[in-house]
Amino acid sequence: MKRARLRDLGLSIGSLPTGPLNAITDVGGVLVGHETIILDQPRVVRSGVTVIVPENGDIWRNHLFAGVHVLNGNGEMTGGAFLEEFGVLAGPIAITSTHTVGAVYEGLVRCKHDLDLGFDLFMPVVAETDDGHLSDSAAFAIRPDHVHAALKAARSGAVLEGNVGGGTGMNAHEFKAGIGTASRCIEVAGGRWTIGVLVQANYGRRNELRLDGRPIGSRIPTHMVPGPWANPKDEGSIIVIVATDAPLLPLQCKRLAQRAGLGVGRVGGTGAPGSGDLFLAFSTGNAHFMEAVDQPHSARFLPDLALGPVFAAVIEATEEGIWNALCAAEDMIGQRGRRSAAIPLDLLKQLASP
Amino acid sequence: MKRARLRDLGLSIGSLPTGPLNAITDVGGVLVGHETIILDQPRVVRSGVTVIVPENGDIWRNHLFAGVHVLNGNGEMTGGAFLEEFGVLAGPIAITSTHTVGAVYEGLVRCKHDLDLGFDLFMPVVAETDDGHLSDSAAFAIRPDHVHAALKAARSGAVLEGNVGGGTGMNAHEFKAGIGTASRCIEVAGGRWTIGVLVQANYGRRNELRLDGRPIGSRIPTHMVPGPWANPKDEGSIIVIVATDAPLLPLQCKRLAQRAGLGVGRVGGTGAPGSGDLFLAFSTGNAHFMEAVDQPHSARFLPDLALGPVFAAVIEATEEGIWNALCAAEDMIGQRGRRSAAIPLDLLKQLASP
Amino acid sequence: MKRARLRDLGLSIGSLPTGPLNAITDVGGVLVGHETIILDQPRVVRSGVTVIVPENGDIWRNHLFAGVHVLNGNGEMTGGAFLEEFGVLAGPIAITSTHTVGAVYEGLVRCKHDLDLGFDLFMPVVAETDDGHLSDSAAFAIRPDHVHAALKAARSGAVLEGNVGGGTGMNAHEFKAGIGTASRCIEVAGGRWTIGVLVQANYGRRNELRLDGRPIGSRIPTHMVPGPWANPKDEGSIIVIVATDAPLLPLQCKRLAQRAGLGVGRVGGTGAPGSGDLFLAFSTGNAHFMEAVDQPHSARFLPDLALGPVFAAVIEATEEGIWNALCAAEDMIGQRGRRSAAIPLDLLKQLASP
Amino acid sequence: MKRARLRDLGLSIGSLPTGPLNAITDVGGVLVGHETIILDQPRVVRSGVTVIVPENGDIWRNHLFAGVHVLNGNGEMTGGAFLEEFGVLAGPIAITSTHTVGAVYEGLVRCKHDLDLGFDLFMPVVAETDDGHLSDSAAFAIRPDHVHAALKAARSGAVLEGNVGGGTGMNAHEFKAGIGTASRCIEVAGGRWTIGVLVQANYGRRNELRLDGRPIGSRIPTHMVPGPWANPKDEGSIIVIVATDAPLLPLQCKRLAQRAGLGVGRVGGTGAPGSGDLFLAFSTGNAHFMEAVDQPHSARFLPDLALGPVFAAVIEATEEGIWNALCAAEDMIGQRGRRSAAIPLDLLKQLASP
Repeated sequence: MKRARLRDLGLSIGSLPTGPLNAITDVGGVLVGHETIILDQPRVVRSGVTVIVPENGDIWRNHLFAGVHVLNGNGEMTGGAFLEEFGVLAGPIAITSTHTVGAVYEGLVRCKHDLDLGFDLFMPVVAETDDGHLSDSAAFAIRPDHVHAALKAARSGAVLEGNVGGGTGMNAHEFKAGIGTASRCIEVAGGRWTIGVLVQANYGRRNELRLDGRPIGSRIPTHMVPGPWANPKDEGSIIVIVATDAPLLPLQCKRLAQRAGLGVGRVGGTGAPGSGDLFLAFSTGNAHFMEAVDQPHSARFLPDLALGPVFAAVIEATEEGIWNALCAAEDMIGQRGRRSAAIPLDLLKQLASP
Repeated sequence: MKRARLRDLGLSIGSLPTGPLNAITDVGGVLVGHETIILDQPRVVRSGVTVIVPENGDIWRNHLFAGVHVLNGNGEMTGGAFLEEFGVLAGPIAITSTHTVGAVYEGLVRCKHDLDLGFDLFMPVVAETDDGHLSDSAAFAIRPDHVHAALKAARSGAVLEGNVGGGTGMNAHEFKAGIGTASRCIEVAGGRWTIGVLVQANYGRRNELRLDGRPIGSRIPTHMVPGPWANPKDEGSIIVIVATDAPLLPLQCKRLAQRAGLGVGRVGGTGAPGSGDLFLAFSTGNAHFMEAVDQPHSARFLPDLALGPVFAAVIEATEEGIWNALCAAEDMIGQRGRRSAAIPLDLLKQLASP
Repeated sequence: MKRARLRDLGLSIGSLPTGPLNAITDVGGVLVGHETIILDQPRVVRSGVTVIVPENGDIWRNHLFAGVHVLNGNGEMTGGAFLEEFGVLAGPIAITSTHTVGAVYEGLVRCKHDLDLGFDLFMPVVAETDDGHLSDSAAFAIRPDHVHAALKAARSGAVLEGNVGGGTGMNAHEFKAGIGTASRCIEVAGGRWTIGVLVQANYGRRNELRLDGRPIGSRIPTHMVPGPWANPKDEGSIIVIVATDAPLLPLQCKRLAQRAGLGVGRVGGTGAPGSGDLFLAFSTGNAHFMEAVDQPHSARFLPDLALGPVFAAVIEATEEGIWNALCAAEDMIGQRGRRSAAIPLDLLKQLASP
Repeated sequence: MKRARLRDLGLSIGSLPTGPLNAITDVGGVLVGHETIILDQPRVVRSGVTVIVPENGDIWRNHLFAGVHVLNGNGEMTGGAFLEEFGVLAGPIAITSTHTVGAVYEGLVRCKHDLDLGFDLFMPVVAETDDGHLSDSAAFAIRPDHVHAALKAARSGAVLEGNVGGGTGMNAHEFKAGIGTASRCIEVAGGRWTIGVLVQANYGRRNELRLDGRPIGSRIPTHMVPGPWANPKDEGSIIVIVATDAPLLPLQCKRLAQRAGLGVGRVGGTGAPGSGDLFLAFSTGNAHFMEAVDQPHSARFLPDLALGPVFAAVIEATEEGIWNALCAAEDMIGQRGRRSAAIPLDLLKQLASP
């Protein structure tokens, strides 16, 4: 069966309506770009970098409120001190593999430098999960220039999922996984708001995998999977990026980020000790230019007590984003002949029917 | 049908074995005491206080490592600055209703003072959820002396659940709820360890309620509930106390506390804006006396990378603790004739069968 | 020599101009009320409660952004989880003695209840330092009603300092201390803003005491002090409340709160292990009503990169507030005949002259 | 006058005794290595990298407890999520310039990889301050290989200070600065312990500069400085690394890190908005191997209430470390002919004499 999105199978998560694309790009101005590196010589590489670029690319000048939550900190998301102090996102977000955080960090610094904006310093946000099972980490295959390529490729519209960009070599719940996205729309405080999520999923055990609460992984017999299991170690990580056009203050973004963890938990994550479960949420509802210091800025924000539906939307979209990663990813053979099998979609449909 | 515990119905959560009592008191030395106040005159009171007293009551001298996590901070747990700074629990934990935190705080201070231990200062840990739907908050019915009574009543063995102690007037997922407890046993790092959980559950909406992932609340027709729904507002709170005999350092306790939130999430919690979802975990695996300053103390701790099963145990026990609160609680009529119906156990059994 | 404020002695801290009163009440709408309890029978009491009430008393409805920082957490400030989650101050701030936090907590809850505002729940902010050296803690002398009295007494204008309200029985740097206040005015981001500070000072050792950096305490010979030293233990605490009319977001308030610690450090504090050094900053520049959930709220905020002068103002005002507490406090004889001597002002002038 | 250390001038900070070298290397097993890059062609580079390597280089296997505190987060210290979650330092610490964090990050990853330890993943700790005033950031002069060189150069014994390693192009309080170090010895809890500090100082304004409290910077007339002032912008940053052989748990290390900020505050820092004031403290008193998961680990720790002298030591050593950086640094001419003048030592002696 051809790879698909979860809803192509007649399945879904939760009850809230999706945006038109059911993707993080449903949030206005949010672009996604992938740079995928698949090499068999001289080293086997199954890796890449994915960038999320708000403000139609002008996040360098239109700074947005943002917040971070860590479910389990065995991972990296650079720029953390800046995000905690200011609650501001001042550049694109990049997600890559563990060994190439440094190169991607330098790539973002160089990209900003090349723009010659007149203000130079910034603390890039680079997050990672480890593709070392399928991809040869020692290749250090992602270089600063690849970030430039990913930024150039960033666009609105449908988002490629599965074995692409930073997600190229990733596995989740012992199946092939990678990049996934989803969105939800809610109405609250007199407005209609979109919440979009993008995940790079590389965590979890098979027997913990659940679909909208129902156990799935424990019901898939090993012999029904078209190939050996992916790395069954209790490790890996998941990065979740939450975007919304709902106007939110930094602390409110941080609260959204924590709810991404509840979504991970419902799919079967436990914030395992070897996992880097790092979540970032940003709001496009207010933009300001940090270097402008001549007068006070203004911001709007949803009432704190009205955020219930926003939280529910983050949870649902995170769950569905992970499932879209699992459904879109294809079988992959990586270094040392290691195989990672995609979840069998026919079987999934069958197991998920009531 | 007589009220029961979840397992009396042939139902359960997850896969890990329970301790002998399936209760927080399976962790050696942990005592639980309830003081329940039910009055109809002059004001309608459905309230109380529950204390958790580690070290067979000698927590005043045998200080334990502890950590706190907040899923949503619309609630109170006093002593927070001390717990964050030192990661130490230096007295009993009390859980009561929102309006009576002050009285219970004074009660704990007086109890310590009366013990004449020679060192006086401490920052009591008092947490709360709001029973103002069924109980008249303006009665301020819980007084400092009730804390003394609860401490005196504290014992090991089976724990009363449901409409008792701090949980007397509480509701969860629009059913009558209150106190619940559960435990799990795991083997890791060369040892066998017990994880026990006690919840005071007073949060959530009916249609979000899930049993081990499966939707339950959304499948219970209103007409099948023996009485009107409890307060259906998107508010309330849940306090979770996690105890373990696994030796853990303060940061590790904090990590356990965060996993309680994943358990709440799996039952259907979202950390709603009006909710105070506050979790505290402590380890009985090391005790030291803070006032002893003559030489370094020693501690043992489980390897960080071995905590996976401990996290899974916290999640499962939290889920089952909430379900035990729901199953044990009985119908209650409170102030202004308000009724809160217990979840119908026959129906629950029926819905939960595969 | 009659007790005075620091500037009455021709001394001062730093370089920024003060507000008209050099007090926290220079920030528009901020009221301060003291209730002082001095009893010799049946028990010796030197205690009280001080309240800070923004919005000319209407803080119950006009909620303000706020943030907290802990330099050393051996102390209590209730309401912490709420402040961290929402960054909002929703009621008056009360400061009292360690043993009476519970009574003051209940007092604030009762006061709100009596106002019959239609929304009832809140998490009072009650902070403390320990007056147990001079005052008999076992008296539990401060009762809920005293909070009502303090709130009723709250007013704008000059603030009583020294042995008054919550500061009645406090000592700092081994001299009599208590309540102190100061303010600064700065111009930044196109506006003129006032920063006011109120401290309840009860921390520190004599030999660490500094005036605008210059060592003072180590140069005061014991025999020149009119009475025995106050409790020279390396304990005690300091509460600092920072108010400003500069429009700030919650994270920005939190950053101000941390700067209060730098002021304490410059006077000679080290965040000693036995000390509860807890700081809260709030901004009157934006008010919103949390219960209003029908549409987004708006807020203004100073540019993050323009906050330098605001930080400097917090540091200076904190230093001078502590010094005002020391200069205003008078000799006190407390329980068991214990004496606490005020710092000799003549000697201070002499030592501080260049 | 030849450049010196503060004590060579007959000046000092505080009252505690120093270790034999008055350097971070007084803490047993702590090595420091510098790689300094000074180029005039093709681009002007005044930059470098400094590494702190505990456990005589075997920090890769002997993991140490550590903690981080942020005074102002306008800066980068990677590895933050890991340090917060586990409180463990699992590799060397590197400090460099803002633009070269990525290259140094990759350098550390490559160095670990080359060691072929059998466990590969780690989150390097790379901190930075900005040398872009004197050094051409666009050169990206520090490459991954320079980290290897710095690690190879790491040794015990006296530490080069001033214009060296990561500190090469840095300025503080408008004078040339860079790397500085100091140490203190204290006796507490039945033992004698050493606290060592290393700073990379690049922050502050001239008129805020203080020596042990006494104002210095405001008393140095511009015309007495042998050259134009360094960059007088209210920006820059300071990284402080605290090492101690006192056995401490992670939360205790975090508390030490916060005290480094009090030291910065006493020298004249305010945690200015443009500053990245990031502090890390680690303890060599316990080492464990995180990958060893077969049984519980053990640790010793100083009693929390005995840490007062340790805090005082951190504050004093931080102050003196900054002053050592100022005293050791030499005049430097950087890009675009910019000059940064060292603080005149004769004048300093004169101003500092009572």
